Amino acid sequence: MTITDIARLAGVSPGAVSFALNGRPGVSEQTRKRILTIAEEHQWLPSSAARALGGAGAGVIGFAVNRSAGTLGAEAFFTDLIAGVQSALAKNRIAMQMVLVSSIEEEVATYRRWHSANQVDGVIVIDPRDDDPRFPVLRDLALPAVVLGSHASEEGHPATIWLDDSQVAHSLFDYLSALGHRSIAYVAGPAEFQHTRLRTEVLAGLERGVSGEVIATDFSPAAASMTMRRLLSRRERPTAVVFDNDVMAIAGLRVAQEMGLSVPVDLSIASFDDSVVAGLVHPSITCITRDTFGLGAAAAAFLLEQIDAPDVLADRIGAMPQLTVRESTAVPR
Amino acid sequence: MTITDIARLAGVSPGAVSFALNGRPGVSEQTRKRILTIAEEHQWLPSSAARALGGAGAGVIGFAVNRSAGTLGAEAFFTDLIAGVQSALAKNRIAMQMVLVSSIEEEVATYRRWHSANQVDGVIVIDPRDDDPRFPVLRDLALPAVVLGSHASEEGHPATIWLDDSQVAHSLFDYLSALGHRSIAYVAGPAEFQHTRLRTEVLAGLERGVSGEVIATDFSPAAASMTMRRLLSRRERPTAVVFDNDVMAIAGLRVAQEMGLSVPVDLSIASFDDSVVAGLVHPSITCITRDTFGLGAAAAAFLLEQIDAPDVLADRIGAMPQLTVRESTAVPR
Repeated sequence: MTITDIARLAGVSPGAVSFALNGRPGVSEQTRKRILTIAEEHQWLPSSAARALGGAGAGVIGFAVNRSAGTLGAEAFFTDLIAGVQSALAKNRIAMQMVLVSSIEEEVATYRRWHSANQVDGVIVIDPRDDDPRFPVLRDLALPAVVLGSHASEEGHPATIWLDDSQVAHSLFDYLSALGHRSIAYVAGPAEFQHTRLRTEVLAGLERGVSGEVIATDFSPAAASMTMRRLLSRRERPTAVVFDNDVMAIAGLRVAQEMGLSVPVDLSIASFDDSVVAGLVHPSITCITRDTFGLGAAAAAFLLEQIDAPDVLADRIGAMPQLTVRESTAVPR
Repeated sequence: MTITDIARLAGVSPGAVSFALNGRPGVSEQTRKRILTIAEEHQWLPSSAARALGGAGAGVIGFAVNRSAGTLGAEAFFTDLIAGVQSALAKNRIAMQMVLVSSIEEEVATYRRWHSANQVDGVIVIDPRDDDPRFPVLRDLALPAVVLGSHASEEGHPATIWLDDSQVAHSLFDYLSALGHRSIAYVAGPAEFQHTRLRTEVLAGLERGVSGEVIATDFSPAAASMTMRRLLSRRERPTAVVFDNDVMAIAGLRVAQEMGLSVPVDLSIASFDDSVVAGLVHPSITCITRDTFGLGAAAAAFLLEQIDAPDVLADRIGAMPQLTVRESTAVPR
């Protein structure tokens, strides 16, 4: 049973059948129904089945996210990334299929399932690790993939879009050091995150007699507030506090204001993540500004190229995040 | 070619074949490869094709979003909603397929395409309108759907989870009126939004001689800042300003502080949307708090029931948003 057979039985053109079966405008509702009835009676193979048999694309890219649903909702990174991915897919009428997984093993199993069912044409992979178990599986499945990472990919691994996070850390810590800060506290996320390690190394390596202190937290505003109260209750306070994200920085700013300190006169505050709100609070917060939307769009576009390409493409370097200086940082007293 | 045939050729149990083909753990890498090679050589029909033929579920729900990618990234509503949907799907190993569309016609075409290709088992629909063209199509396709709306569904329309938005508006405007505010400005979104209309009606209907003024904006913080400067430059200033979302309220708070006004002593500020940051800025902002994550989870769970159910289920009422009073509102001077 082909589209031409259905067209003959329905007394319409094969083009009209294709429109009707693919849910596109261009045929009347009455004709559409007649065509669908005939296709159904003759057990016409719908397009996803045909694609699965014929090996053509599913028209879908996959994104398996190893996060809890709660974390996903709290991180602006994901909204921006997903919106960027969608912006690149929308013009190609390609959908994104997203699923939350609770372990890297479940993520690997998801890739196998997607591949065996021909449900996706390629995947976006985040949070690469050392000896990552996902990469050999993706290679064996020959499933196109683009990784978002902080360094170039190794031989045989999927193509990567990467950013040099230690350069990012330098742009913020060097600036505070140049302003004259000699005691800088860094309120970080969990120590196992690669970017936390890189930032810690940069802070420890600053010259000019800067003493740096790192406090690991769970990224929550509550932990940021608690840490800030402790830091500001000391006899020897830091003169600058840097937070891993904007929500923690805003929580820290509030604590400073509650304790009667004026920012930036008594204390400088900065953040490694930016947001619209970070630029609106009073004083506005000095941040590292990243184009996460652009990163998502670039990753999706790169993945579509990868799907079309016969071989794995070369790595790309993402747009470098920039230091945005606002009202919350100044020369220390 | 069945799973049993493949099992015989590979010299393993049919269960092992099923594990291997569905990408689940439980077989060695070597066995998995042998099974996949045999399945490929004998052109075994992968599961999405089998499902499309057999009529079983795709294991995917669809979400076609009629927004620009930029808007999607700026609205916390979507992150929270998607995270909530994922929380309900994750335990069932069901994926969400999401696509951005640029018109309601494209949205309808997407539903037809998804249906004809058996790509999704059901859809979540937002922003219902009068004489909504999507509803008859969804009914004709017999595609299970759950609508997020502000009133009960009509006869023959998909099941709806709805919230009474005029009750929400009352909870905020009545409170300000009870505090003694007699001149309230409402900095709203575009006038065509149903909730803007409802809130405007509630403000206009307040008793006790309250004069309400509505200023329509494009939801941007820039428009909120500009509006706030104009309102506060008048000889007769409002004593309370209510914003449609938290980002606009934070922009408005900043303008008030820049102009030397003390919030809430000189001016009360409130927002119809809450966020973590709204509770962290200084002063923290009185908001309507919604459980959008819970709404997403409820919608996905309702949709899964709908997919299993033979008939359209009855509407449900979502969790009522609550007024969260913080530091930004007080009795006017």
